[in-house]
Amino acid sequence: MPKKAVILLSGGLDSATCLAIAQADGFECYAMSFHYDQRHSSELEAAKCVAQAAKVQEHRVINLQDLGALKGSSLTDVELEVPDHDAAHGEGNIPNTYVPARNTVMLSYALGWAEVLAADDIFYGANAIDYSGYCDCRPEYIASFERMANLATTRAVEGAKVTIHAPLLQLTKDQIIAKGIALGVDYAQTVSCYRANAQGAACGTCDSCVHRQAGFARLGVTDPTLYAA
Amino acid sequence: MPKKAVILLSGGLDSATCLAIAQADGFECYAMSFHYDQRHSSELEAAKCVAQAAKVQEHRVINLQDLGALKGSSLTDVELEVPDHDAAHGEGNIPNTYVPARNTVMLSYALGWAEVLAADDIFYGANAIDYSGYCDCRPEYIASFERMANLATTRAVEGAKVTIHAPLLQLTKDQIIAKGIALGVDYAQTVSCYRANAQGAACGTCDSCVHRQAGFARLGVTDPTLYAA
Repeated sequence: MPKKAVILLSGGLDSATCLAIAQADGFECYAMSFHYDQRHSSELEAAKCVAQAAKVQEHRVINLQDLGALKGSSLTDVELEVPDHDAAHGEGNIPNTYVPARNTVMLSYALGWAEVLAADDIFYGANAIDYSGYCDCRPEYIASFERMANLATTRAVEGAKVTIHAPLLQLTKDQIIAKGIALGVDYAQTVSCYRANAQGAACGTCDSCVHRQAGFARLGVTDPTLYAA
Repeated sequence: MPKKAVILLSGGLDSATCLAIAQADGFECYAMSFHYDQRHSSELEAAKCVAQAAKVQEHRVINLQDLGALKGSSLTDVELEVPDHDAAHGEGNIPNTYVPARNTVMLSYALGWAEVLAADDIFYGANAIDYSGYCDCRPEYIASFERMANLATTRAVEGAKVTIHAPLLQLTKDQIIAKGIALGVDYAQTVSCYRANAQGAACGTCDSCVHRQAGFARLGVTDPTLYAA
C-alpha cells in the first residue's frame, strides 16, 4: 500500500513541482491549499487545475481568511503596495510580501491532516536559493518545525515520526523547472505572480515573476505564463 | 507604554486565569478564540464574556472550521463519543478529546497576530498536572514551539524574541483557581465541559468537568458551574 503524504499546494511553480516529486517518490498525495484573501487568489484556481491534472487523492482548500484579516503584508492588505523585484531583497531585507506566520499556520494544518490520515510525510515547496529571503523558507526553520511537530501530536508520542520534505530547498529555479518538466508538470497551469489578476495573468515585474522568468531563461525554455496587457 | 501580549482564550477556567495573570503582569491583552465546530461551542460565548469583563484591548474569534472538518477527535466528530473521566487518561493513554494539531494551529495564529501587533509575548493556558496527557500541553512541546517561532518570522530575524508564557503549566487545578480568585476571575462565566450544551451547562462526568470539580473541592470553594439536568 502506498504511503500517504500531505502536500502544500499554492498553485505556483514550486509547489506544483513539489507535488510531482512526491508522486514520483511513490506517495499517495493529499493536496492542501489556503484561501487567505490573498491578492493573487487566482492561484487557487491554478491549484485546483494542478491537483486535478495530478489526480491527487483529495484536494482541500482551507479557509484562512481570518489570518488574512490580520493584515501585515502587501499580499493581504490592499493599502500596501507589492514591491517590484529588487535584487537587494533577501535575508537581511525581507519584502512586505511576507505574510506573518502564514507558512507556520499552513504547515500546522498539514500536520493536523497528516495525523488524521495516519500519514508521516508532509511536502513543502520552500526554496532558499531563488527567493526573497523569507525566514520560513530557510532550512533551520524547517528543521525546527519538524522537531516541534514530533512533540505535538498523539501520533508522534505513540512513536511515529513525521518528516517535512522540502525537496526544492537547495535547487535553483532552473533546476526546479527542469525537474518539473522531466516529471510532466504543465507550468501553463501554474500562477506565480503576487499581482496575478482574476484570470491568473502575471505582472512580470514582482519578485516572484522575475525569479520565474530568470529560471526559464537560464534553462532556455519558453515560460507559458500569461502576462497582463 | 504597556507591552502587548496575545492570549489564547478558550473560555475555560485555565485560559481565563491565564488572561488575568497576563493583565496582572502589566500586559495590554489581545485575546484570540477559535471556532472549530467544537461540540462545546458555547465556550465561545464564555470567551466573549470573559474578554469583555477583563476589558481586553481586542478580542478576535478565528474561524478554524476547516480544521474541525478534518475530524479525528470526539470534539469535532459527532460520531465519536466524548469519554467519561478515567484516571488512566494521561501521557501514555491520551483520550480522543485531543484535536489533531489544534493547539499548534492556534499558537501559530497567535504568532501571526503578535507579529502584526509588534508584540513579543503569547500567553497559553496549558497545564501539565491536572490534565489528560495532551502532548501539546507538555513543557517540551511549548519550548520547542517557542524555538520554532523564533526562526519563523521577519520580526524574529530582525532581532525580537517571542516568548510563549505558560504560567499554569506546573500548577495544580486548585492552585490555578486560587490564583484566579485572588485576581478577581469570575469562574461563573467560564465553560470547561467538553459536552457543554448550548447554554453552557456542564455534564459533570468528562475529564474536564472532573478536573475542575476536584480543583474547587480541594480548595473548599463552591464551583459556580451550571450542570445540565
